Amino acid sequence: MTRTRDDAPADGTEDAVRRGVSRRALLGGGLAAGLGVVAGVGGVLGAQQISAAHATDETVDLSRSIPFYATATRMPQPGIRTIPQRYCVYMTFDLAAGAVARSLQVLLARWSAAIAQLQAGKTVGSVVPAAGTGAGQDTGEALDLGPASLTVTVGLGPGVFGDRFGLAGHRPATLAELPALPSDRLDPALTGGDLSLQACADDPQVAYHAIRDLARIARGTATVRWTVLGFGRASAGPDQTTPRNLFGFKDGTRNVSTDADYAKWVQAGTDQGWMAGGTYQIARKIQMNIEIWDADDVADQQKIFGRTKVDGSPLSGGHEHTTPDFAVKDAAGASKIDARSHIALAAHENNDGVKILRRPYNYTDGLNQYGQLDAGLLFLTYTNDPDNFVRLQRRLGASDLLNEYIAHVGSAVFAVPPAPAAGSYIGEALFA
Amino acid sequence: MTRTRDDAPADGTEDAVRRGVSRRALLGGGLAAGLGVVAGVGGVLGAQQISAAHATDETVDLSRSIPFYATATRMPQPGIRTIPQRYCVYMTFDLAAGAVARSLQVLLARWSAAIAQLQAGKTVGSVVPAAGTGAGQDTGEALDLGPASLTVTVGLGPGVFGDRFGLAGHRPATLAELPALPSDRLDPALTGGDLSLQACADDPQVAYHAIRDLARIARGTATVRWTVLGFGRASAGPDQTTPRNLFGFKDGTRNVSTDADYAKWVQAGTDQGWMAGGTYQIARKIQMNIEIWDADDVADQQKIFGRTKVDGSPLSGGHEHTTPDFAVKDAAGASKIDARSHIALAAHENNDGVKILRRPYNYTDGLNQYGQLDAGLLFLTYTNDPDNFVRLQRRLGASDLLNEYIAHVGSAVFAVPPAPAAGSYIGEALFA
Repeated sequence: MTRTRDDAPADGTEDAVRRGVSRRALLGGGLAAGLGVVAGVGGVLGAQQISAAHATDETVDLSRSIPFYATATRMPQPGIRTIPQRYCVYMTFDLAAGAVARSLQVLLARWSAAIAQLQAGKTVGSVVPAAGTGAGQDTGEALDLGPASLTVTVGLGPGVFGDRFGLAGHRPATLAELPALPSDRLDPALTGGDLSLQACADDPQVAYHAIRDLARIARGTATVRWTVLGFGRASAGPDQTTPRNLFGFKDGTRNVSTDADYAKWVQAGTDQGWMAGGTYQIARKIQMNIEIWDADDVADQQKIFGRTKVDGSPLSGGHEHTTPDFAVKDAAGASKIDARSHIALAAHENNDGVKILRRPYNYTDGLNQYGQLDAGLLFLTYTNDPDNFVRLQRRLGASDLLNEYIAHVGSAVFAVPPAPAAGSYIGEALFA
Repeated sequence: MTRTRDDAPADGTEDAVRRGVSRRALLGGGLAAGLGVVAGVGGVLGAQQISAAHATDETVDLSRSIPFYATATRMPQPGIRTIPQRYCVYMTFDLAAGAVARSLQVLLARWSAAIAQLQAGKTVGSVVPAAGTGAGQDTGEALDLGPASLTVTVGLGPGVFGDRFGLAGHRPATLAELPALPSDRLDPALTGGDLSLQACADDPQVAYHAIRDLARIARGTATVRWTVLGFGRASAGPDQTTPRNLFGFKDGTRNVSTDADYAKWVQAGTDQGWMAGGTYQIARKIQMNIEIWDADDVADQQKIFGRTKVDGSPLSGGHEHTTPDFAVKDAAGASKIDARSHIALAAHENNDGVKILRRPYNYTDGLNQYGQLDAGLLFLTYTNDPDNFVRLQRRLGASDLLNEYIAHVGSAVFAVPPAPAAGSYIGEALFA
C-alpha cells in the first residue's frame, strides 16, 4: 500500500464542526487566516491518484550482506554501484600532524580489514575482551543486527598526495581541491578532509556503528572533520522506484545506470594507473530552505525542476522516464521546459554528453538558528573526472532557478581507489 | 543472518603483513601505540558467539498502517502501546502569544484530521492544488511511500492549563513542570513546550514528512521549540528482541508489557476525568559520552549496567529475561549486581513496585564542539503519574554509576489525552 490522496477523508473535521467549532475556524478563516496553509485537511484536494504500489520498496530485508573484496579486476568499491541503501553516514577525516606514510598505510589496511568484517555482519574484534578486562574492540550496538546491506566506501583527499607522505607522484591528474563555484556558501567546518568514509545501510544503527568503530580505529592517526547523516535515499538504483528529495520531487530519474555509461563517465580507466577501476567522489552538503519552498506555488516549483511534482514526468510530456524534449514549445511559443530549470541545465544533452553518478541522501539537522526546519541534501556523486562536476555545477550555480532555495554549505573531493582483492587493502598500490 | 564475531577473519591484515607492513605496525606497536584501540581487527577476539537470528527483526514491512481513531473507550493514542517502530521525530511547540482557546481547539482538530490521513498512508490535502496554482497543502516527499506503521502522538504541556486559555479547571492534578533533578544539565533551548508531537515510523522520511506537515498546519498558532530525531529504537515491544542503546547494551528488557501493568502504571484512570484512558509523556534528551564510554573496561561497563554486554543477562546469573537477584553475593561477599548499578536503581523491586513505560530512541547530532561524536538517547516514557518518574530519576540521578557518562540536556512533560473516537479529535473533551 502506498500513499494516496483521499477524496473524502474521515478526518474528524466535519464532526468537529457539527459539535460547535465553526467550519470557518477549522478551515482557517479568521483565526487561522494568513497561516500559509489555509485549507488544512479534507475538502478540496488535488486530482491525482498516486500510482500503484511498487512492491520491491515495501519490504526491507536486513539480512542481506554485500561482499567487500573484489572478485574481478578493476571493480569499484562497494557503495558506488550498489543499489542505494536507505541510510548513509558520511564522515571526513584529517590526518594528524604527526602522521607519516606508514600511519596512512596501516590505517587503510586496518580499515579495510574492519570494513570486510562489518559488511559481513560481524563485529570488529571483540565486544568483551578475551582477557576479561580492558576496553572492547567493537562498541557492540550492532550486535544482533543483520548486515543490512552495509557498504563502506573509502576516499583519499588531495592532501594525501601532498609532499608530506611522499605520495605526490601518485596524485591522479584529475584530483585537486574544487575551485570556488557559483552559489557556494561554504562553511569551512563542512569542507575538505584527507579521508572520507561513506557508510550506507538499510539500518541506520548499522551504518552509524560502522562509522563509529572505524573512527575509533583512526584515533591517533586521523581526526574527524565533518559528518552528515542521510536519513532517506534520494536517488534510485536499478529496479528501484525514484525516491523524492525534501522538496517533494522525484530526484535521479536520469541517473547513470547502464554498464556502458558507468564505464564511460564514472570508472577511472587504465590510463589512470593505480586508480584504474576506481572513481572520484564529490560530496556536497546542500541546505534546502524547505519552509520557503513550501510556500511557493506548485506550478512554480514544477517550472523550477522541469518536471511535474506528483508523477515526475518532464514538462514536455509523457511519463517519468520519457526523455525530456527541451525544444517543445507551448502555445505562446515559450519552452515547456524552462532553459534555466534544473533538468535542462543538468541534462547530458545540454552538457556535451556529460553524466555523473548521483547517490544523494536527504538529511535534516533539526532546527536552524531561526527556528526553521534545517534540512537538505547530502549530494554524493561519482565521476571519473571531477572537472565534469565542476563544469556542471558552474552552469547550475550560475542560473539554476533552484538557487533561490538552496545553498551549498559543505564540499569535498576524494579519489576512491578500486575495491581490493581478498588479502589486499584499499590503496595498497600506493605503497608498493 | 545476525551479527556474529569471527574467529578467523579474512581481514587482509595477515596479507598486508606478508607484503611488507610489519605486524607490529598493523597491530599498533610503535606508530599506533596509545591509540586506545590497540588490537584493531582479527587476531585476539572475545569468546562469545552471538545467539541465533530473530527472524521477526530481519524484514521490515513498510505497507503496514496503524489506525488513528479509537475503537473502544479509553484507548491510548497510537504510539504508546504500539510496538516501537524504527524511527522517531519528536518535536515540541509553543503556542503563539496571540493564540486563544479557540486557536488551540482548531489546531487540535486539524492535527487530528491530518494525523488520521497520514497514518492511513494518505497525503494531508493536495500536493498539487486543484486550482492549478498556489502552494500545495501536502509537501509531497512521502508520496509513493507506504504508511510504514506511522503513529503520531499529541501531548499537551502544563502551559495549556494556565490562565490564558480558561482551561485551568481541566489541569490534571498530576501535571506540572518537572522539578530540578540531580544530574540535570538542561539546555533551556531543549526544554518544555505547550504541545508535543511524537511521530514514529519504520521509514524516517514518513516520520519526518508527518512532523513537517503538522508543523505547517500549526503556523501562526504555534511555533517550533525543540526537536530530536531518533534513528534507532532502543526499547522492545512484545515479540521484539531487545534493541541496544549507543553504549552497546540491551535496553528495556524489563519494560512494561502486560495489560495489567499498563493499566496500573501507565493508563490514567477514570478518576482523572477527561484524561481517563490517556497518560503522561516525559521526554528527556540524554547526551551519552560515547567516546569516553568506549575507552572504559567492559567489566566496568557491565558493573554500571548490572547486565552482561553481549547477552544482556543480569550479573546475578541466568539469561536476559531472568529476574535479577539483587541479594546474591559473590565469593568475596559483594553484591553481584552493584546497588548503584542502573538496573538496581531502576528496578521496581527497589522502587515500591513503580514501573514506567519506556519508548526511547537512539539519536546522534553529528559532532560536538570538541569534535567528538555527539550522541545519546531520546528517552520517551509514559506513566499515569509523572511523579513516579521524578522519584525514579531522583534516585538514578543521585547515585547511578552511569551518571559519569551521561547528561540530561533536554526535558519536558505532557498530558497525552486518550485516542479520539472517529468524528472527534484529540482533547475535544477540554472544550465541551
